[in-house]
Amino acid sequence: MEGTNQTVNEFTIEGRNAVIEAFRSGKPIDRVYILDGCQDGPILTIKREARKQDTLIKYVTKERLDQMSETGKHQGVIACAAAYEYADIEDMFQLAEKKGEPPFLFLLDNIEDPHNLGAIIRTANLAGAHGVIIPKNRAAGLTATVARTSAGALNYTPVAKVTNLAATIEDLKKRGLWFVCADMDGTRMYDLNLKGAIGLVIGNEGEGVGRLVKEKCDMVAAIPMKGDIDSLNASVAAGVMAYEIVRQRLL
Amino acid sequence: MEGTNQTVNEFTIEGRNAVIEAFRSGKPIDRVYILDGCQDGPILTIKREARKQDTLIKYVTKERLDQMSETGKHQGVIACAAAYEYADIEDMFQLAEKKGEPPFLFLLDNIEDPHNLGAIIRTANLAGAHGVIIPKNRAAGLTATVARTSAGALNYTPVAKVTNLAATIEDLKKRGLWFVCADMDGTRMYDLNLKGAIGLVIGNEGEGVGRLVKEKCDMVAAIPMKGDIDSLNASVAAGVMAYEIVRQRLL
Repeated sequence: MEGTNQTVNEFTIEGRNAVIEAFRSGKPIDRVYILDGCQDGPILTIKREARKQDTLIKYVTKERLDQMSETGKHQGVIACAAAYEYADIEDMFQLAEKKGEPPFLFLLDNIEDPHNLGAIIRTANLAGAHGVIIPKNRAAGLTATVARTSAGALNYTPVAKVTNLAATIEDLKKRGLWFVCADMDGTRMYDLNLKGAIGLVIGNEGEGVGRLVKEKCDMVAAIPMKGDIDSLNASVAAGVMAYEIVRQRLL
Repeated sequence: MEGTNQTVNEFTIEGRNAVIEAFRSGKPIDRVYILDGCQDGPILTIKREARKQDTLIKYVTKERLDQMSETGKHQGVIACAAAYEYADIEDMFQLAEKKGEPPFLFLLDNIEDPHNLGAIIRTANLAGAHGVIIPKNRAAGLTATVARTSAGALNYTPVAKVTNLAATIEDLKKRGLWFVCADMDGTRMYDLNLKGAIGLVIGNEGEGVGRLVKEKCDMVAAIPMKGDIDSLNASVAAGVMAYEIVRQRLL
């Protein structure tokens, strides 16, 4: 079983909801930069949370925030925290066990756009998945943009980084997981049995799921396409597939 | 019945797939700017299409393309076309009739992010919806970013702009449509009857569906939320809801 713990020294969290979520999840936040003069509800909540947790508050100008911002969408608040740590796949199994649920993991085969990665982590959290596995190469890693677009989900849903997704699938099969990937030439997703311990494989934005990874999958699921163009946005496809799994699990 | 035809003088289409799709859909393209020296497959396809349609090809430097680019993601090609025209709602009914299907429309209650708007138009196309209705105020309109993130869907799926979404819903109810919006306090979407002529209402990224619009809806559908955070990304939620409608229509 593979998984790394990679730490960057410091990490910024930008935007009101993301900062509030980070506080509420108990993530240790070193200091928070707030636009001077800002007094609305979410900002007052952030100040209260910061005081509760002895976090240093600094009031700064818009220019300073713009300069610090990585995403360009700070909404008047940027928090500095310890870097997001990558989880181990073992954490995901423990989470599933704690909830008394069969494991449900997302595996992302080279998602490159940090907005897609963030949206997919957000979906994984809400669909009740126990973790997201990403490959080390090429793919987007956990940046401030990912944290922001995950809308706080990064604080709850473990994300592990592995060197070889196909090898990880092999390992996880030994632990009882079935793997399904989304591809146009597959079986209509409604006609597959997606209950039980499952790994949902989502392909790259341009190229879909890689051949080697696809060969390891037990099932290839097709989302019905009734339109004129080729494929859904990667994070939308992940959402549609994930919720078909949710639906079947609820039956 | 409301709907406007709004025309901007010119419009750029950026990125290889978006430009190829625009050619294939028969959209009149005035000229196409290609990165000098670019010779790969998609670029050759674009050149062939351009010659076929007597479109002027101009070879330019990367600097020039960067300067022209609105999205920052031109991938070596930018096409200039007549502006996307907004459709009339009548066009959507005609499209449904032509396909022999009960009307299926998306109504977006103030989607502000052009990436979300583009992804939702892409989803509407693939889920077999006959059109997308957006309000005039506040919401994102049809820009190059929307065209690009729609991955060509904007060439096929009519988009109409209306002044008052609640009034439009009232009008459309008289024509036999039922309206469903997504909100957390609704009935589980699997337990609703979403077959037949339907309007799917998607709320704003931050605030969800507005009160006035929600009151006009016949059904409020909840996407099951099993996680720790509040809500899905707007374009993911639209995809999940749209595909529940697709699933029920296929039954």
